[in-house]
Amino acid sequence: MDLKNYIATIPDYPEKGIEFRDISPLMADGNAYSYAIREIVQYAQDKQIDMIVGPEARGFIVGCPVAFELGIGFAPVRKPGKLPREVIEAQYEKEYGFDTLTMHADAIKPGQRVLIVDDLLATGGTVKATIELIEQLGGIVAGCAFLIELDDLNGRDKIGDYAYKVLMHY
Amino acid sequence: MDLKNYIATIPDYPEKGIEFRDISPLMADGNAYSYAIREIVQYAQDKQIDMIVGPEARGFIVGCPVAFELGIGFAPVRKPGKLPREVIEAQYEKEYGFDTLTMHADAIKPGQRVLIVDDLLATGGTVKATIELIEQLGGIVAGCAFLIELDDLNGRDKIGDYAYKVLMHY
Repeated sequence: MDLKNYIATIPDYPEKGIEFRDISPLMADGNAYSYAIREIVQYAQDKQIDMIVGPEARGFIVGCPVAFELGIGFAPVRKPGKLPREVIEAQYEKEYGFDTLTMHADAIKPGQRVLIVDDLLATGGTVKATIELIEQLGGIVAGCAFLIELDDLNGRDKIGDYAYKVLMHY
Repeated sequence: MDLKNYIATIPDYPEKGIEFRDISPLMADGNAYSYAIREIVQYAQDKQIDMIVGPEARGFIVGCPVAFELGIGFAPVRKPGKLPREVIEAQYEKEYGFDTLTMHADAIKPGQRVLIVDDLLATGGTVKATIELIEQLGGIVAGCAFLIELDDLNGRDKIGDYAYKVLMHY
């Protein structure tokens, strides 16, 4: 199945010169959504994953069915103020200034093997901060999986030597 | 399985006098998460559902695995400015003033049967606006499913005669 048939490209969104890749047609199609999730599940299969971690909000759309299909738990990465219990934080650089991401301090147990799942690998700031959060908690990042990589933005440099899987390249 | 064993209660969050019910321990436990999702899938089974609709962001955590397990699509309900293509809007009343929710204008096809899935039924503002959005697009609301209902807040009055299912009452 060519998943790119289910990606809408929006020119000049969210700002001029950016081509936004919208996964909502993929999610809306039961067959395409199921196919994409199963591809990531298959990637995870031989990695002895204990937990899926996904950044809000589209990371939930991709990561939660992967967790369900593997029969394991899901831990969200959220913006500050969204998680009600004790959190840990990591910062990442944006075009102007820094943003902060948080996880619950008990979201990962030391030694648990984690797969990070998100819709998009762009500049890699989010995944880098997510790796930091997991490792702060003593978790092992066993891999990362994305629906889409925007190759020109070199997000893979931020992933470094961690294993990662991408379903579509642009 | 008593799912309440996997709900954390946080007193005085997000403000004094509110007991916040946190589903993150449930999501983190593969067995409890799987059990909860399967309960909703079973509720959906005889309703000929074509699409799952869930409000951001916790509605994604519950609704997306339900869509995956049923082999159907998922359409997100999001705050303004988050969806990149043409949207429709509905407003709902909050404690002070109004909030707006949006869906893509092509998210539901006329006649499609929709199950709304969210983590929490509280005052019912979100689900009422979500019903309006689906019906604006010509969809049929075949039911609503929630992990938790806060019974004292009477959100069920906003659901009215639509079918709904709740896994835990507080």
